[in-house]
Parts: sequence; structure tokens; C-alpha cells
Amino acid sequence: MNQSGRLTSQHKKSHGVEGIFCIEAKAHDTLVRSIAVLVRKSLQEKYPQLLFRHRANISKSEINDALRRIDSNLGQTLFVKEASIQPDGGIIEVKDDNNNWRIVLVSEAKYQGRDIDNIKQGILVGKNGNQDLMVAGNAIERAHKNISEIANYMLSESHFPYILFLEGSNFLTQNITIQRPDGRNVTLNYNSGALNRLDRLTSANYGMPLNTNLCRNKFIPHHDKMIMLQAASIYTHGDGERWKEAEMFRVMSDIAETSLKILGSDLFIQLTGK
Amino acid sequence: MNQSGRLTSQHKKSHGVEGIFCIEAKAHDTLVRSIAVLVRKSLQEKYPQLLFRHRANISKSEINDALRRIDSNLGQTLFVKEASIQPDGGIIEVKDDNNNWRIVLVSEAKYQGRDIDNIKQGILVGKNGNQDLMVAGNAIERAHKNISEIANYMLSESHFPYILFLEGSNFLTQNITIQRPDGRNVTLNYNSGALNRLDRLTSANYGMPLNTNLCRNKFIPHHDKMIMLQAASIYTHGDGERWKEAEMFRVMSDIAETSLKILGSDLFIQLTGK
Repeated sequence: MNQSGRLTSQHKKSHGVEGIFCIEAKAHDTLVRSIAVLVRKSLQEKYPQLLFRHRANISKSEINDALRRIDSNLGQTLFVKEASIQPDGGIIEVKDDNNNWRIVLVSEAKYQGRDIDNIKQGILVGKNGNQDLMVAGNAIERAHKNISEIANYMLSESHFPYILFLEGSNFLTQNITIQRPDGRNVTLNYNSGALNRLDRLTSANYGMPLNTNLCRNKFIPHHDKMIMLQAASIYTHGDGERWKEAEMFRVMSDIAETSLKILGSDLFIQLTGK
Repeated sequence: MNQSGRLTSQHKKSHGVEGIFCIEAKAHDTLVRSIAVLVRKSLQEKYPQLLFRHRANISKSEINDALRRIDSNLGQTLFVKEASIQPDGGIIEVKDDNNNWRIVLVSEAKYQGRDIDNIKQGILVGKNGNQDLMVAGNAIERAHKNISEIANYMLSESHFPYILFLEGSNFLTQNITIQRPDGRNVTLNYNSGALNRLDRLTSANYGMPLNTNLCRNKFIPHHDKMIMLQAASIYTHGDGERWKEAEMFRVMSDIAETSLKILGSDLFIQLTGK
């Protein structure tokens, strides 16, 4: 049985998309991590005066420490001592003039919805194996957890270089038509409630546009207060295509360079030698 | 087959806790909604000068409207027109002096981890049916989505009356020992990484204490800026017991009354008749 046959049969057995989410995500995950390695290398070459590092995770205790530095009431709880978060593409940091590591890039890559592959291969789905489309699941909502953790870790910063790369049929932004092996065409309507899960994510960018660099925090005056917004930069391949390595590299480099620019005054001595 | 037998067999079939999360959650969900009805009734009786309402959901388009009122760059995206969020206990609102509905309570109730019931009934779990404990799943991370949506909806407020009631063996805050029907005792260690999922939620309250009313937003000065924190109030029955109706009622009333107090100046005319 080929891989996609195996996935489909697992999918049917598990009566949901959770299983598929985990399995299919691997390729996309691995890709974003490999590209993060290249991004770090490229940043190091472009800015030889600075020191960069790339790590796979941040522990909850580090996040708690960062919160306590802001206010001693925060960051008090930890139940599993070794708890950590592991964004798919890891975390790239730069060392600032005060020898503190500052985050310049965090990336995640999520895949959900394999309808396109199913149709291309003529696989029918559903309980009775007679549907073209699988009703979308909600596993993607879990993406909010790491966004929230990194936002807390970076509360004292004025940038939030968090990228969420989406692919799969649950993240379309336009209708697409796919041909089955028997010649029949199946159209996927991007705005179908059974298919689209983008609305489950857009609270993370306050409903600002997708495929946009939102690294620089917004400061919004409202009545007697100022609100700081940390928005994730959500990128979707809304036509159902897979992300290409070069595209991801470009997006990730763009966000990382925006971070560096915002951090500029804390990198000034290293950059100028003054 | 009794209910718990059925659940266990479904659990095994689905190779994960996702299924269980959905099924078991129902009872706990229904309970929190029923109690919200009582809380609304009790608020209406206590404050007859004010008008309260209880609704099951908020649409994404309302959330977008609220975001756009703060800044026109926000709240622009909507993919599924009818998208909405439906917190388990619904949303209780009060009408202010300007005829705007203001949120005073949002409640959710999540159950994850049925190890205690399994042990009490002598049910062994795992792939080979030979383990006392099931490795905990991550479905609970989805709870962040609604927290994030309501936080956005309430960005212009200075209170965040969001309660997350937790129960189940994945949310213990102390060790407990359960006896099997054959007399053997099984101890559940609250700080085991395979069992405890509280750390997956605590970013939502910035690591502040559990079982605490965090309704009043914190405003924290840091360097040249002021940060507003909207923290969910997370309540767990950390000894593995079920939430009792009276306990939930007390917690929910407490948070709702805190909201009213914070909203005070916008309710002043109705409250005083001046």
C-alpha cells in the first residue's frame, strides 16, 4: 500500500482528521526546520558582526523567567518541570549588545485537509466511502497555544516574528477545481464552512491580512490606554499548492530582517563597532 | 455495554484521546451552560435596575466589527460568513447606560483524562490493554482559540471575565491514589509529563495562580510602554473530583460581579437613577 493509501485507511479508522494532521504535518514541519537552518546561515553571512543561534525549543521555565522579569506576579506556575514548547521551525535568536539572546524568528508549518490529494487519486471518503470531501477537523486550533507562549516570552519586545505557514485544503482563499482520475471535476469552495478553517486562526492576527509581514507590533491608543498587539504573520498557500522552499525562505528572511531592524538600537555597537 | 465501556472501546479505536474529549466533555459543557442560566437569573434579581442577556455564541463578524472600531486595519478577514464561536457556558452581557451590550461573563468547561474512572472500574488501557494510565492528549490546547477570540472582542475593555473550568486526570495539582476493584492502589502523580496538561494552558493567564479571579486586567509598565494583560481565570479541580454545581455558581457569580464593578461608571445612571 502506498503512503497515501495508508494515510487514508488510518484516517478512516480514526474517524477524524487528528491522525492525518499529525502524520501529514511531518513533511511540512521538517521542511520548515531545514529552511530555518538555511535562514540562520544566511543571516550569519549577511551580518558577520552579529552572532545568531538556532534552537529547537524554549522551556516553560524560561518563559516564566521572562514573565517574572516584567512583573513578579506572572510566571509562577509550572507543573511538569521539563515542559517546553517546540515550534516546528525552531527559534532563531541574535545576541544583543548586552549579551542577551533576542528572538528574530519563530516558525511553524501546519498542514490540514488532504482533499486535493484524495480527489487526484480518486479516493472517496466519509463514513460510507462515498464523499469527495472530508468535513474539516479542528486540530489546527491547537496552533494558538505556541503563539500565546511566544507572545508571553516576548511581551517586553516591540516585535513578534512569528510565522505560521499553512497548507492543505482547509486553508484555501480561492475556489479550485481538481480532476479525478475518471475525468470528473470536483470544485472546492474556499468559503464553505465544512472545508475552511482559516477563521479558526485569524484571532492570532486580529483579522489583519494574511500573507503579510506583521512582525512590528501595533500600538493602538484607545480611550485612556495604549494597547500593544502582537500579531502572528499567517501565510497560506490559498490555491491548494504546496509551499516551495524558496518562497518559505524569502518570507522567513523578510521577517527575521524586520526583527533585526526593530532591535537595531540594541545591536548598534556590534553593527557599527562604535 | 455501559457508557464507560463504550467510551473506552471508542477510545481504543480512535488511538487517542480526541474522541473521549468530545464525548465526555458534553456532560461538563451542559452543566456549565445550565449554571450560566442560573447566574444570569441571579444577577437580574440582584440588580433589577440593569438588563442582562445570555446568548450561546458571538459571530466572527461581530468580533471583526469590534476590532475595526479600535483600528480600521484590524478585523478585515472572514472566510466563512456564518463563522462564530460558542463558549460552552455562553456569554452573559449587561446593557450599559449607552445601550451597548457589555460582556460580564464567558465560561468554558473542559474535561480531559478519564484515568480515575478507568482505574475505579478496573479498566486497563493502552495499545496492549495492560496500562493503568493513558498518555494524555493535547486536544485541550484548542481552548486557546476561544480565549483569543474573546480577548480580541474585549480589547477596548479593562476586564476579561473568562472562566475555564477544568476537570479530569490531566489537570491534577496534587497526587491522588485510586483503588481498583481488585484492591490494588494506583497513584497518579500530578507532575508527570505523561499525565499533566495544565502547562499547555497557563500561557492564557501568564502563569498567574490557578483558581483565582483574574477578571481585572493588569496594566504593566515596561520601559517606555504600558502592557495590558487579559488573563483567563483558570479553575481546576486539582484533586480529580468533579466540579459541583454550587462551586461553579459561586465562581461564575464572583467573576460576573467583578465585571459589573469594573463597568461601574458605564452603569452609573441605571444603578443610581441620576
